[in-house]
Amino acid sequence: MHDYDLSDLENAIRSVKDFPKPGIIFKDIATLLKNGDLFAEAVDYMYDHFRDEDIDLVAGIESRGFIFAAALAYKLNIGLIPVRKPGKLPGNTISETYDLEYGADTLEMQEDAFSEGKRILLVDDLLATGGSAGAACRLVEKLGGIIVGIAFLIELAFLNGREKIKDKDIHSLIVYQSE
Amino acid sequence: MHDYDLSDLENAIRSVKDFPKPGIIFKDIATLLKNGDLFAEAVDYMYDHFRDEDIDLVAGIESRGFIFAAALAYKLNIGLIPVRKPGKLPGNTISETYDLEYGADTLEMQEDAFSEGKRILLVDDLLATGGSAGAACRLVEKLGGIIVGIAFLIELAFLNGREKIKDKDIHSLIVYQSE
Repeated sequence: MHDYDLSDLENAIRSVKDFPKPGIIFKDIATLLKNGDLFAEAVDYMYDHFRDEDIDLVAGIESRGFIFAAALAYKLNIGLIPVRKPGKLPGNTISETYDLEYGADTLEMQEDAFSEGKRILLVDDLLATGGSAGAACRLVEKLGGIIVGIAFLIELAFLNGREKIKDKDIHSLIVYQSE
Repeated sequence: MHDYDLSDLENAIRSVKDFPKPGIIFKDIATLLKNGDLFAEAVDYMYDHFRDEDIDLVAGIESRGFIFAAALAYKLNIGLIPVRKPGKLPGNTISETYDLEYGADTLEMQEDAFSEGKRILLVDDLLATGGSAGAACRLVEKLGGIIVGIAFLIELAFLNGREKIKDKDIHSLIVYQSE
């Protein structure tokens, strides 16, 4: 049971033109996060979709992904694995690089983040081109983990990010078909 | 009621020598986060301390602070305000700079993050020299907010970070008196 539906969540997201650079319409989730009822509902919608999937751990992608991943891990009463930008995690790490419009970026995970066969739910705030989610999936799978699914608050469907993670159970709460 | 005491939390934190640079002993919280019971306990200890303080919003400092801030906001059923590194937040922002050992760093908050008089709980994973927590307090107070308290998972007491936030109700779950 939910007090709000997904259109209420969508209505709480603000579009900001030309951020972080000209021509881009940025989806600002701060306006949703500061509403405690809507933030909790977003987490609960993710929870409802994956609660029966026998998940061992939630992996969250730095840094807005940490927000939903942490609340969801807390709700599921399971642990959280941080997927971070290079140089942030101590000890032995593995890394995966992905293409950006111009250049490339890298994500890292600790080698001892979890043991083989663990069932992992990946969480991020936004599915755009799918580069970071794809890299995070490869990191989990390199360590022998199973990606049970991927939860996003927002999916920008017109960027076709699903193509990069197409064999996965993707659950996006809010889908934008066009800019 | 707690199933674990604070020494269980402390025992789950790993010390990593010479990270991120030689001579520094890094407190790695990933080993705590991946244990769902201990992660939830850490959040619940923060919750217990501040639950009756009539808090309107939780402010979390990027990026590990987001983890505890988000779970705590969810538990309190209130909203979350992200305090971020420069250039990450769209729209009109305010900023505060603080000194590092070499150089300086800056934190930002959106100008419309909350309305005057709101009661804010600040959350971060680590109190070290207190620079970032002090800057975050100044941001909240610039917008007319009231810092009800500050919750940290870890306090490195030997760095005297409390000096920079000494008029605040500081609640650290794990305190290291020496390196």
